[in-house]
Amino acid sequence: MRHGRHAAIGVFDSGVGGLTVLKALMERLPLESTVYLGDTARVPYGTKSGEVVTRYSLANAHALLEYDIKALVVACNTASAVALPALEAELPIPVIGVIIPGAQAAAKVTKTGKVAVIGTPGTIASGAYQAALTAASPTMQVNTRACPLFVPLAEEGWIDGMVPQLVAEKYLGGDFLGADVDTLVLGCTHYPLLAEVIQKVVGPGVTLVDSAKATTERLVQVLRERELTRLERGPVERHFLVTDTPARFLEVGARFLGRPLSGARQIDLHVK
Amino acid sequence: MRHGRHAAIGVFDSGVGGLTVLKALMERLPLESTVYLGDTARVPYGTKSGEVVTRYSLANAHALLEYDIKALVVACNTASAVALPALEAELPIPVIGVIIPGAQAAAKVTKTGKVAVIGTPGTIASGAYQAALTAASPTMQVNTRACPLFVPLAEEGWIDGMVPQLVAEKYLGGDFLGADVDTLVLGCTHYPLLAEVIQKVVGPGVTLVDSAKATTERLVQVLRERELTRLERGPVERHFLVTDTPARFLEVGARFLGRPLSGARQIDLHVK
Repeated sequence: MRHGRHAAIGVFDSGVGGLTVLKALMERLPLESTVYLGDTARVPYGTKSGEVVTRYSLANAHALLEYDIKALVVACNTASAVALPALEAELPIPVIGVIIPGAQAAAKVTKTGKVAVIGTPGTIASGAYQAALTAASPTMQVNTRACPLFVPLAEEGWIDGMVPQLVAEKYLGGDFLGADVDTLVLGCTHYPLLAEVIQKVVGPGVTLVDSAKATTERLVQVLRERELTRLERGPVERHFLVTDTPARFLEVGARFLGRPLSGARQIDLHVK
Repeated sequence: MRHGRHAAIGVFDSGVGGLTVLKALMERLPLESTVYLGDTARVPYGTKSGEVVTRYSLANAHALLEYDIKALVVACNTASAVALPALEAELPIPVIGVIIPGAQAAAKVTKTGKVAVIGTPGTIASGAYQAALTAASPTMQVNTRACPLFVPLAEEGWIDGMVPQLVAEKYLGGDFLGADVDTLVLGCTHYPLLAEVIQKVVGPGVTLVDSAKATTERLVQVLRERELTRLERGPVERHFLVTDTPARFLEVGARFLGRPLSGARQIDLHVK
């Protein structure tokens, strides 16, 4: 049956970053099969325009639909920030982005009502987190900052030592946080890899929120509402698709997924 | 007349980096019109596979051919490293890459015969510089290193201070250079922006070579041989094309071209 309980969950990201979301999903929903697509031929999305990221996101979604998926997780903050309305309008299945769940999680955590958000230039410029946070709590005060160098640092595996420390101080030091901010949203799926150094720079009084777990809880809820949850044990399939050759994805991706990746299939997307 | 002396020179790069080559070209050949294409919707090339970079390079070249160009400069080291044979086979005009001119310039500069090359992962993995340097001088000893973080640093404008200094020390310190290396090839068009900090790390005994000027001299020679040099003064046209929306290209590009960019036209490329 198309889009039935046995269909898989589709997940896409610009590259490897979304594997942090897939990891949370596999832990929370071990019975569900998954198809992950990393658009490695066009990565990164965070420095590209909303127009281009929307075009790529639609192409990714249509490629995943060919795998008979019952729900789509947009495991990329930039795509969630700019392409969610277009995806929801075009797809016949539920679409879950990472921004609204992340913002709701932050709204629950903060006691001061002052929250900071870091992300790619595209995510921050979209204003999506500001909108989602004030929707969750209208009196919320929100600081934001784009941190473009965090993505290449995480991809390089430079996640501790002096270089990430100095970069984090440059982005998050000074008066960015302000006195009363008690919650920092990691608004990019690459940033959890740098959580330790970020925590060190912002200090122990600030709680870091990443949206991987909150997004998975939202998926659990949506599957339940639509009666799409897989109920019985059975063979669980894990497909990995990439748009560039797989070598680099397999190598870097293992760091993000927290376990080795055995293989990925290269596919072509037809986009301009 | 197609491909006549009045036709323009086409230049492409993955994004803004090639503007350092265009700058040298405009200074050396002020009578020549130019059409520059930055593939900003797919940037960067340096971390992508040779297969994908070749596909993108061919699409760029065909888009430029529609502007009636008489010669094509591949102002991107990664594309020059992996796509030159495919471009030469498909195009009806001369194609000039940056690697062979850069390697020949380095071979002229070195006194010890020991040269180091830094570039993107794609350029270094291709072995193109090693091949070009030993072709220029068979006894040449060549060290190479991929420096992926230099591109995002240059794009962010973080070209001085502690962060680029530490990154440069991490890539170029230790025993990478060895005692007798006297020449370092900046094998990526982004790196000239970091020349000052790189020079500081490698010390005054090492000469930095960037291929922008050498590539322009090679173009001058090719235009002369083919009788394609523009001889008389006349209106000089400067076209800038991009594949993403132009805003970020115009902002970051000004740093690379060394002067403001008045406008760029967004075009679609039809690639998979």
